[in-house]
Amino acid sequence: MILSGGAGARLWPVSREALPKPFIKLPDGETLLVKTMRRALGLADGNGILVVTNREYYFLTRGEYEPLGKTPPALDFLLEPVSRNTAPAICAAALHAAREHGDRTVLLVLPADHLIRDEEAFRDAVAEARKLAAEGWLVTFGIRPNRPETGFGYIEAGEALSTGAFNVKRFVEKPDLAAAKAYLAEGRYTWNSGMFCASAVSIIEAMRTHSPEVLCAVEATLAATDYDKVPRILAEGPFAKAPDVSFDYAVMEKAGKRAVVPANFDWNDIGSWSALAELTDADAQGNRVSGEAVLIDAKGCFVQSDRMVAAVGVEDLLIIDTPDALLVSRRERAQDVKTVVQRLKLVSHDSVRHHRTVHRPWGTYTVLEEGERFKIKRIVVRPGASLSLQMHHHRSEHWVVVSGMAKVQRDKEEIFVRPDESTYIRAGMAHRLSNPGAIDCVMIEVQAGDYVGEDDIVRIEDKYGRT
Amino acid sequence: MILSGGAGARLWPVSREALPKPFIKLPDGETLLVKTMRRALGLADGNGILVVTNREYYFLTRGEYEPLGKTPPALDFLLEPVSRNTAPAICAAALHAAREHGDRTVLLVLPADHLIRDEEAFRDAVAEARKLAAEGWLVTFGIRPNRPETGFGYIEAGEALSTGAFNVKRFVEKPDLAAAKAYLAEGRYTWNSGMFCASAVSIIEAMRTHSPEVLCAVEATLAATDYDKVPRILAEGPFAKAPDVSFDYAVMEKAGKRAVVPANFDWNDIGSWSALAELTDADAQGNRVSGEAVLIDAKGCFVQSDRMVAAVGVEDLLIIDTPDALLVSRRERAQDVKTVVQRLKLVSHDSVRHHRTVHRPWGTYTVLEEGERFKIKRIVVRPGASLSLQMHHHRSEHWVVVSGMAKVQRDKEEIFVRPDESTYIRAGMAHRLSNPGAIDCVMIEVQAGDYVGEDDIVRIEDKYGRT
Repeated sequence: MILSGGAGARLWPVSREALPKPFIKLPDGETLLVKTMRRALGLADGNGILVVTNREYYFLTRGEYEPLGKTPPALDFLLEPVSRNTAPAICAAALHAAREHGDRTVLLVLPADHLIRDEEAFRDAVAEARKLAAEGWLVTFGIRPNRPETGFGYIEAGEALSTGAFNVKRFVEKPDLAAAKAYLAEGRYTWNSGMFCASAVSIIEAMRTHSPEVLCAVEATLAATDYDKVPRILAEGPFAKAPDVSFDYAVMEKAGKRAVVPANFDWNDIGSWSALAELTDADAQGNRVSGEAVLIDAKGCFVQSDRMVAAVGVEDLLIIDTPDALLVSRRERAQDVKTVVQRLKLVSHDSVRHHRTVHRPWGTYTVLEEGERFKIKRIVVRPGASLSLQMHHHRSEHWVVVSGMAKVQRDKEEIFVRPDESTYIRAGMAHRLSNPGAIDCVMIEVQAGDYVGEDDIVRIEDKYGRT
Repeated sequence: MILSGGAGARLWPVSREALPKPFIKLPDGETLLVKTMRRALGLADGNGILVVTNREYYFLTRGEYEPLGKTPPALDFLLEPVSRNTAPAICAAALHAAREHGDRTVLLVLPADHLIRDEEAFRDAVAEARKLAAEGWLVTFGIRPNRPETGFGYIEAGEALSTGAFNVKRFVEKPDLAAAKAYLAEGRYTWNSGMFCASAVSIIEAMRTHSPEVLCAVEATLAATDYDKVPRILAEGPFAKAPDVSFDYAVMEKAGKRAVVPANFDWNDIGSWSALAELTDADAQGNRVSGEAVLIDAKGCFVQSDRMVAAVGVEDLLIIDTPDALLVSRRERAQDVKTVVQRLKLVSHDSVRHHRTVHRPWGTYTVLEEGERFKIKRIVVRPGASLSLQMHHHRSEHWVVVSGMAKVQRDKEEIFVRPDESTYIRAGMAHRLSNPGAIDCVMIEVQAGDYVGEDDIVRIEDKYGRT
C-alpha cells in the first residue's frame, strides 16, 4: 500500500499542490513515486499495489505507473475526497484489503516520498517484518541514526524478537538536540521511518481498541462507497467526519504487540531542499548545480534552474528556479520554505497551486503567455488520449499542430490536422481534440476573446468522467 | 552631444549588448538616455542634439527620442561602425560641429548613462562652463565626493578662474583607498564626471597637439563618410584605424587650458546594481523590491523581478531576474558582475547579447518558446511601421492577430488581418507585415519547419535599409 498524500511545501517552488513532492523529478529523471512503486514491485510475490491518495492525483499516479512495465500487477486505488492524515488512510486500506483479499492479508505501508537505494537490504527487512506481521505484530521500520536529528520521531527498542527485530519499548516524539544526542549515543534508538507492516486484522483490531472513532468513520465510509465505480472514490460525507490523526498517534504509540525492524538500508525522506541538494554531486567548492550556472567565488551553494544563473560571492545558498517563481534561501533555513508557502497561501498566489505546465488526464498544457484578450498555450496530447467534447462562450481558438497528428471534431465535422497545418474553433462551437497517433501530439493554441479564463468551458462529454 | 557607447556589463542580466545601460528602464519607467536627452533639451538655447553611438543603436535611440515632444530640435547622428572609445567619438563630433555650424560652436559632451536630479544646478554649471568654453577653455565638471570612492578618477583644482570655476592642476587616475581618503579630506579634489564643455576649435587644436593620430584618422573618416546618406554612418575603414583611447587620456590629461566647474548637483553614473538599487525605497529591514517578493528574515537585499521571488534568511544580496537569466550576488561584489559577462562571452552565451524581447526598427519580437521544428513569437509592430518584404526557405509561418490591425502582403495579394483572424505564409512565399493602424499591432507567430533560425531570411525590400 502506497500512501501518497503530503504536499511537500518545503520543496516549493518545485513542489506545488497540483504536483506535490512524490511527483517531483529527481536528478536522475525519476520521481519519488516511481521509485516507491518499483520498490514495491520488487517484492517478488506482492499481490499488487494499492494506492491511497487524494482523488486529484489519480491520473497523475496512473501516468507514473503505466511506463513501469508491460504487465505490472493491477494498480488498485482508494481515492480520498478530502485529506485526513494517515490513520484514516491506513484504516481504509486495512478494511479494503480484508474485504477483497481476506483479513489475514499482510499490508506493507510505504509513504510515496522516501528514497531508498539499497533495494536488497530493503527486501530483507520487509521479509523479516512480514513474518512478524503474520504472527500478529504491528511492525515498524527503524532507521539507524547517523546524526542527532531533531526533525524525526524516534523508536526505542526493547528485547530482541529475532536476529533482525525487537519489541518496541516506546515511541518518542521529535526530541530536542540534547535528547537527540543522547539517543544517538545510546544505540537502541532508531528514527521512525513512517513505513509499517501488519496484517489487515491486526490493524483493524488495534484501531478498534485505541481509535474506535477512526474505525467507525472509515467503516461507514466504505459502506457508503460505490465499489463498482472506477476509480473508487471514498464516500465524502462519512470520510470527512474521520478524525485528522496520524497512525502513529492513533495506534502505534498505544498498541500492545509492536515490533521494530532496524533497517540496514539507506533512507532519505527528502524533507527539504537541503536533503534534495545532496543528490547532486558537489564540485571542489561544495557547489552543486542542476542546470546552467556561472559561479564566481561561490561556496556550498545548490542551484537548480532551467535558465542561466550567475552567482557572485555567495555561500551556502539554495537557488531554486522555476518558470514563474524563484527561491533564494540560506541552506540552514531550508525548513522555513514552508513559511513562504504559508504566506503565499494567504494571498492565494497561483505559484502555490499550479505550475505553468498543468497536468491533465490526456496530457499537459503550458501557458506560454497571457495578455489582455489573448492567451497562448502549448498543448501536448498523449497517444490515444482525447480532450472532452467542449465549448467556450467567450473565446475562439486557433490551433497549429507542430508535431504528431491531431483529430479535431468541429461541430459535426471531423478533420485531421498535421504538422504545419492549422484549424480554427470559433466561440460557441462544440469541439474535441484527440490524438489518434502513436506519438505525442504537440499543438500551439492561440486563444482570443473578451475573456480567456479556464472556467469558460462547457464539457459536453468526457472519457475521464469530468462532465 | 550625447555619447552613448558603453555596454554596462556590470548591469547584466538587464543590460545586454543589444540593449545596453542607456536603454535600461529605471524604477520610474524612464531610461537613462531619455533623462539625458531631456536634460540636454532643458538647456533653453541648445541648437540641437548630436548623438554619437554605435550604428546598432540608431533605431533604439530614435525610438527613445520621438516621444519626448511634438517638435523637439532635430536629432543629428554620427553612427560608429565599430566602437573606438571617447577620443575618436568626441573628435568626430567636434569636426562635424565645426563643419556644420562653424568652429566656434560650443559642444557640451554628455555621457548617456548619468543620472542627475537637480536640473537647475546642472543648467547653472553648464552656463558657467559655456562662458569658459567660449574663451577657449576645455571645461570639465567635477563632482564633490561624499565618500572615498576608488572607482572614479579625480580632478585636483588649482587657482580660481571665477566664483564657480577653477584651473585644473592635474587629473588623477582611480586612486587606492588611502589616497581617496586623503582627497576627500583635502577638499580641492572632485570626481571626474566624464562630462565636458568646449568649443569645436579648442577640441580640434588640442587633439592636433596631443593626439594627432586620432585627429588624422577621424579627419580621414569624415572625408570618406557619405554625408548625404541618412542615417550618417562613419566610414568604417578609416574609423577602425583610429586608436582606441579615452578623451581624458588622449587630451585632458595633457592639454594646457583646462578648467573644472565643481558641480552643485547630485550625480550618479549607475555604475553597478548596488547604485541602481539605491533608486528604490528601502523597507525597515533595508530591503528594496521592484516586483513581487516574499521576504522571510531577509536584510539589505535588492530584488528586481517580474516573477515571484522568495528569499529566506539572506542578507545583502542582489537578486536580479530576467526571463532567461538570473543574477544572485553579494551586494559588495556588485563590480564583479562584469566577470560573469566575461565568462558568458567566452562561450558566446546568448544572454550577453540579446534579451528574449528583441528590438527592431519596426517594433519588437519576443521568443515565447522554441522547440524542435517550431518557434513561437509575439510580434509587436508600431503604428505605420513595416517589416521588410521577405522570404524564408525553411519555415512557414502561421500568424494570428490578437490586437490592432495587420496589413499582409502574400506574394502579389494584399490582405487585412484583424484581431482573432489568422493567415498563413508558406515557405518560399514573399511576404510583408505592416501596421496601417493607429495602435500597436500584436501578433502571435508560430513558425514550423526543418530549420527555424533567424538567419533564414531573404530581405527583398526594406524601408530601414537592411536589404
